[in-house]
Amino acid sequence: MSIKPLADRVVVKAAAAEATTKSGIIIPDTAKEKPQRGEVVAVGEGRTADSGTLIQPQVKVGDQVLYGKWSGTEITIDGDDYLIMQEKDILAVL
Amino acid sequence: MSIKPLADRVVVKAAAAEATTKSGIIIPDTAKEKPQRGEVVAVGEGRTADSGTLIQPQVKVGDQVLYGKWSGTEITIDGDDYLIMQEKDILAVL
Amino acid sequence: MSIKPLADRVVVKAAAAEATTKSGIIIPDTAKEKPQRGEVVAVGEGRTADSGTLIQPQVKVGDQVLYGKWSGTEITIDGDDYLIMQEKDILAVL
Amino acid sequence: MSIKPLADRVVVKAAAAEATTKSGIIIPDTAKEKPQRGEVVAVGEGRTADSGTLIQPQVKVGDQVLYGKWSGTEITIDGDDYLIMQEKDILAVL
Amino acid sequence: MSIKPLADRVVVKAAAAEATTKSGIIIPDTAKEKPQRGEVVAVGEGRTADSGTLIQPQVKVGDQVLYGKWSGTEITIDGDDYLIMQEKDILAVL
Amino acid sequence: MSIKPLADRVVVKAAAAEATTKSGIIIPDTAKEKPQRGEVVAVGEGRTADSGTLIQPQVKVGDQVLYGKWSGTEITIDGDDYLIMQEKDILAVL
Amino acid sequence: MSIKPLADRVVVKAAAAEATTKSGIIIPDTAKEKPQRGEVVAVGEGRTADSGTLIQPQVKVGDQVLYGKWSGTEITIDGDDYLIMQEKDILAVL
Repeated sequence: MSIKPLADRVVVKAAAAEATTKSGIIIPDTAKEKPQRGEVVAVGEGRTADSGTLIQPQVKVGDQVLYGKWSGTEITIDGDDYLIMQEKDILAVL
Repeated sequence: MSIKPLADRVVVKAAAAEATTKSGIIIPDTAKEKPQRGEVVAVGEGRTADSGTLIQPQVKVGDQVLYGKWSGTEITIDGDDYLIMQEKDILAVL
Repeated sequence: MSIKPLADRVVVKAAAAEATTKSGIIIPDTAKEKPQRGEVVAVGEGRTADSGTLIQPQVKVGDQVLYGKWSGTEITIDGDDYLIMQEKDILAVL
Repeated sequence: MSIKPLADRVVVKAAAAEATTKSGIIIPDTAKEKPQRGEVVAVGEGRTADSGTLIQPQVKVGDQVLYGKWSGTEITIDGDDYLIMQEKDILAVL
Repeated sequence: MSIKPLADRVVVKAAAAEATTKSGIIIPDTAKEKPQRGEVVAVGEGRTADSGTLIQPQVKVGDQVLYGKWSGTEITIDGDDYLIMQEKDILAVL
Repeated sequence: MSIKPLADRVVVKAAAAEATTKSGIIIPDTAKEKPQRGEVVAVGEGRTADSGTLIQPQVKVGDQVLYGKWSGTEITIDGDDYLIMQEKDILAVL
Repeated sequence: MSIKPLADRVVVKAAAAEATTKSGIIIPDTAKEKPQRGEVVAVGEGRTADSGTLIQPQVKVGDQVLYGKWSGTEITIDGDDYLIMQEKDILAVL
């Protein structure tokens, strides 16, 4: 995929609504505020902190991740929907 | 447990509502704003500060902790409920 | 183009409303909140952080970029409309 | 006491409502906004600043302290009530 | 001109309402929110950042600049009106 | 006096309502928003900045100071009223 | 004058309402929001930044300055009115 997120942004492919992960995590889409699950498809080069230090992202392409319900902005690439969000919206790697 | 919280996040297994800890701390679930008790089941690698320094977490897996009543976000793993929160929501280790 | 954006600002030429990029990204202008696409036509020399470090821009002239729907301020140069925005409003390079 | 406050938090045992300290400080409980008095019973290891420096607490176990009227969160240990607060809520050592 | 702006401030002489710049930039005064054009007539020595570093201004006397519509404060010098603003209100040098 | 203010706090003994200082400064108590005058009776060891540096207080015990009308919190020591405030609430030393 | 402003504060003697400066700057008192003119009569030793660096003031006693209309707090010294303000409220030296 040719998209390169800027700074500490990440592109995520949202998982199907009701899915159980390999490691058994159930993410009922309907549940109120419950975090959502998806796969990382593109990662930025990281954020330059005020000290001038480049802070590397902790996630990588292919990671299954949990992110806050309303995180990110929708974009469509080749007819597929993705979310582009900041890494700080990602809660955990599964 | 295969979940890896990101940055300074921690996964906590909430204790049963009315429990007295080994060290005698009573956490009545009903009490208004009273902190809640639980056990740490997963810890992130820490937060990268603006200076570029990685700030290590002060809690570790297995710690019994006190956290603010409304802290964290609910997730379900293998049918069990957990909370994923930032370390700064944790008040103390018991 | 003789315009030199200041600090971390970027001048972007907005793409036509309904366009499919070489890499297949469809940006329907009508869609609510959907990010917009455009081409970078001028880039500032970067922002001086509080540490005194000059933080270089990550985008360059000619990049096709995705930016937030309401980003930037309109200006007109030689009868053409452009947007001048901060680099942090740019989500990704396509 | 086995409780270990996290970061820059402190556990305080609130003094009885109307008490005159050894050094003659009267803290009438009823007075509006008047600071409260209590004894420090546990101290965290300190807060890690953004620079990565660990900022040591200035109070220690046994200190008689003055703190803002609404500071801290209530917890109960072995049937006794305590307050867990951040060190910045403590005004002075008596 | 004997006025010396303090820190990162700049004094700008606003251009006449409807003007086309040498480089063809049209700034219709009436247009809503459109940036305004003017000439820099005095520049401060720069802002001292929290690190103690002096952050030099990027504009200089004589620059034609674009600035946000409502930027700055009006002052009158020898019967002429000027605007005194912070450098961060300046969008670009033309 | 045995009280030790924490961090950058200062204990001030408020001057009588209508007083003219040695150096002739009149502080009419009734005047709206006018700063108040008092004497410093205790000073903390200073605030530890985010860089880990201890920032020493600029005032010392015995200084006559001007402070903002609503600054500080009231405490009573040996029947006398004092104010405990942060050094940044102090405008000047007289 | 015996008053010593604290940190980055400055004491200013406000100029008479309608005055034209040597360098021809007219400051009509009545004009809305127009900056005011005055003379610096006392300057603090500067502000200690978070890095521990002392940031020296850019103005000195005797400077004619322009400051924001509502800046500072009124004090009276030997029957004369002055304003005590932070240096960042001062726009320029005339």
